[in-house]
Amino acid sequence: MSELRRRLAEVADLESTSILLAWDQEIVMPVTGGEWRAQQRATLERLSHQRFVDDEIGELLEAAEPETELDADLLRITRRDYDKARRVPADLVEELAHAGATGHEAWVLARDASDFAMFEPHLRRNIELRRRYIDCFPEVARPYDALLDDYEPGMLTADVEDVLGRLRDGLVPLVGDGDGDADALVTGGPFPTDAQRRFVETVLHQVGVDERWRLDVAKHPFAAAVSLGDVRLTTRYAEDDLDSLFSTLHEFGHGLYEANIDPALARSPLGGGVSSAVHESQSRMWENMVGRSPGFWRWAFPHLRSAFPERFGTSSWQDVHRALNVIRPTLIRVSADEVTYGLHIVLRFELELALFEGDLDVADLPEAWRERTRQYLGLEIPDDAHGVLQDVHWSEGLFGYFPTYALGNVFAGQLWARLNGELPDLDEAFARGEFASLATWLSENVHRYGRRLLPNEIIERAAGAPLDPEPYLDYVRAKLAHQPG
Amino acid sequence: MSELRRRLAEVADLESTSILLAWDQEIVMPVTGGEWRAQQRATLERLSHQRFVDDEIGELLEAAEPETELDADLLRITRRDYDKARRVPADLVEELAHAGATGHEAWVLARDASDFAMFEPHLRRNIELRRRYIDCFPEVARPYDALLDDYEPGMLTADVEDVLGRLRDGLVPLVGDGDGDADALVTGGPFPTDAQRRFVETVLHQVGVDERWRLDVAKHPFAAAVSLGDVRLTTRYAEDDLDSLFSTLHEFGHGLYEANIDPALARSPLGGGVSSAVHESQSRMWENMVGRSPGFWRWAFPHLRSAFPERFGTSSWQDVHRALNVIRPTLIRVSADEVTYGLHIVLRFELELALFEGDLDVADLPEAWRERTRQYLGLEIPDDAHGVLQDVHWSEGLFGYFPTYALGNVFAGQLWARLNGELPDLDEAFARGEFASLATWLSENVHRYGRRLLPNEIIERAAGAPLDPEPYLDYVRAKLAHQPG
Repeated sequence: MSELRRRLAEVADLESTSILLAWDQEIVMPVTGGEWRAQQRATLERLSHQRFVDDEIGELLEAAEPETELDADLLRITRRDYDKARRVPADLVEELAHAGATGHEAWVLARDASDFAMFEPHLRRNIELRRRYIDCFPEVARPYDALLDDYEPGMLTADVEDVLGRLRDGLVPLVGDGDGDADALVTGGPFPTDAQRRFVETVLHQVGVDERWRLDVAKHPFAAAVSLGDVRLTTRYAEDDLDSLFSTLHEFGHGLYEANIDPALARSPLGGGVSSAVHESQSRMWENMVGRSPGFWRWAFPHLRSAFPERFGTSSWQDVHRALNVIRPTLIRVSADEVTYGLHIVLRFELELALFEGDLDVADLPEAWRERTRQYLGLEIPDDAHGVLQDVHWSEGLFGYFPTYALGNVFAGQLWARLNGELPDLDEAFARGEFASLATWLSENVHRYGRRLLPNEIIERAAGAPLDPEPYLDYVRAKLAHQPG
Repeated sequence: MSELRRRLAEVADLESTSILLAWDQEIVMPVTGGEWRAQQRATLERLSHQRFVDDEIGELLEAAEPETELDADLLRITRRDYDKARRVPADLVEELAHAGATGHEAWVLARDASDFAMFEPHLRRNIELRRRYIDCFPEVARPYDALLDDYEPGMLTADVEDVLGRLRDGLVPLVGDGDGDADALVTGGPFPTDAQRRFVETVLHQVGVDERWRLDVAKHPFAAAVSLGDVRLTTRYAEDDLDSLFSTLHEFGHGLYEANIDPALARSPLGGGVSSAVHESQSRMWENMVGRSPGFWRWAFPHLRSAFPERFGTSSWQDVHRALNVIRPTLIRVSADEVTYGLHIVLRFELELALFEGDLDVADLPEAWRERTRQYLGLEIPDDAHGVLQDVHWSEGLFGYFPTYALGNVFAGQLWARLNGELPDLDEAFARGEFASLATWLSENVHRYGRRLLPNEIIERAAGAPLDPEPYLDYVRAKLAHQPG
């Protein structure tokens, strides 16, 4: 095992270094370094792939004799990864990367021009290459299974179809006309950046950010876990709203997951978050279930008021809490509320499934998008930029990714129901500024496992039940029951 | 050639990534990431070494047929590097690194206790391992040649002995008693950090720092060239002096060298500074020959006065220029002036040469240090911390490095004499805030070559003569002739 572990640690070091190269490019690097940085990143990624799919790793995996349970988990997951990585020819990997980069550039131009036709050939190319990727896995029951597995190892299309179908059927009846200007208190600004930063830092400190963490500013916020002792969050400040708080809490959820993985898994294939959906369950929980809860605002409101005394001098925590929980259907996924967000995702999942398994042609995509938006959200799309061209994912060839956003909410709903049963009066604890019991529960029941278990195994163990949208729907219904108007 | 170039580019990417890992560790990383960062750096360094000494690189070097002059230079230098790297067994490389790390820790404790005996066994161990390193190169005329070659490729001990001997004989008679308190104007502070930063940034902008550069704060300032488009300087602000300016100009000299290397050499073994001494010639030139020149202060003084109006309200540029050029022997190398600095180096060079080639025993080192300090600087050493324990180099096994500091001054003297002949009225140009002609001359005559030529070849081409201490001695004598008192 020790030679195998040594080689896997080397690959892990290359991967964590790639994370740093990407973080540095966004946050620190002069833009004039871009061309060279691309080379550095490509080299690191190619090397870590090469070193992992090496024949000798295969022989070591073959010969390894596990002595502990951890060894056994390491072998199980690594053999799975190795088998997948070996199936895809290097030239296809390169073609996918190249088409993704080209597609991304085309998408930026098409979106700016709001013209789907400019993007269409690139999307066709990405889909064609992904079909060749799917062909590398002839044993899958359904083509989409091969795509999904890259984000949710072991999860099946049939299960996702069932869960997201039930989620859709539960959410559509909840979509109303919105609450007018009930959010006027927290929009329109000005919320000076310096005051936002101080407020956000106060919140982060309270929820558990210590000397292991950094917070920087990025155009598109993200979290980067460079190591267990080095977790970097980013956020974005806009003067006219308080989104920086929610974006920061979102990234904190991602970061906390990575920071709490069992150190025994570090520098191995097990030392990371298990899947996109489980990751998203953590970020969404901190952003919404914590960050929009009554308890949180009972604690946070005095800090908010002292940061923006003119705006909130005569408000109560209830006013702010209400304003931050407005439900209103919108056209753009990234600014959607907790109720309609799931419907944005279901729409994308259904369309990409139809592209790969049904009879939807790429040319018919804008119309299909328009129809489903009408059906699920009751809204009319004015142009492609506000419809089919709004998201970056497909331009880079990321298919199978979208459903993980909604599955993240579903998981979060299940975990939230379970942990509120085990940690009664959690909202009261939040009101006292106490978030450690929640963080500890998540660490014990989700984070520490890293990739030792598959996503479904982690959820079943932590939530006590298989994938189920009902707890999330209950959570959303309860929220709507307390809405004004 | 193309497969060879591809492989060498990969090694270069790993090396530039290592530079970023080190920069990030000093400037950005939470300290709690240290343990993992050490692993990341060790992995990157091991991999880049492995990939370079690979048999296939040897075969490619063997078979390569140069088509251009650049190809020929690449092969010449890379074969030299390859041969050297292959001679040293991996286990010796590891022992050297380990003893260097252990030695460094022991040195920190010994220096704090000012007790050479605590450090002595570690120094013995470092010397013993370096002797084994020297044994890997049985063809050298003198043992010290093998050490020197790591910093000054192709340079011989005999030449360094001759040049530094002449430097010593020229400098010793110049050592006086110092200028009393002639530097009171620029010492004692307070020079508020914010004002220093603004002043330093004004200077950097004027000497040519553009959007490719960064400036950050570090405990021990250094420059890191992550790529041609990404050059990072660091400095240190102390409230009681203006050293931040000189430390920044010093690092700017290093950075400018790396930033001006011919882009055609990037991502190859030729894409870096050629040697420690040539690098140091650039940093010292900007720090001292530019930064302490009359012309520089005629331009800079108004900016200095507006940064610190209370301190300099009634001074002239001449006052500041005089105060910054005080010559006074001191015990500590890093705070030495331009005249006595060379003698600090000669002392170290003579002692390490005697350790490796003469009959000096490690136990006798403190006494030898004391004697030579008396002889060269006329000073008495109160304790080991102010003598033999003041520098980090030997603790890490760096032997052969010290002379490059003095050789840097010698090179700088030769270049300065030559370029002042070719660029008349340079001091007048500085007075108008014009530094571009100097930067261009250095770029054309030194920087752009990268490692295409050996250090001696670069100097002979740029300065028009072989290694010679006389121009530097002339420069120092002229400075002393204009001293007050």
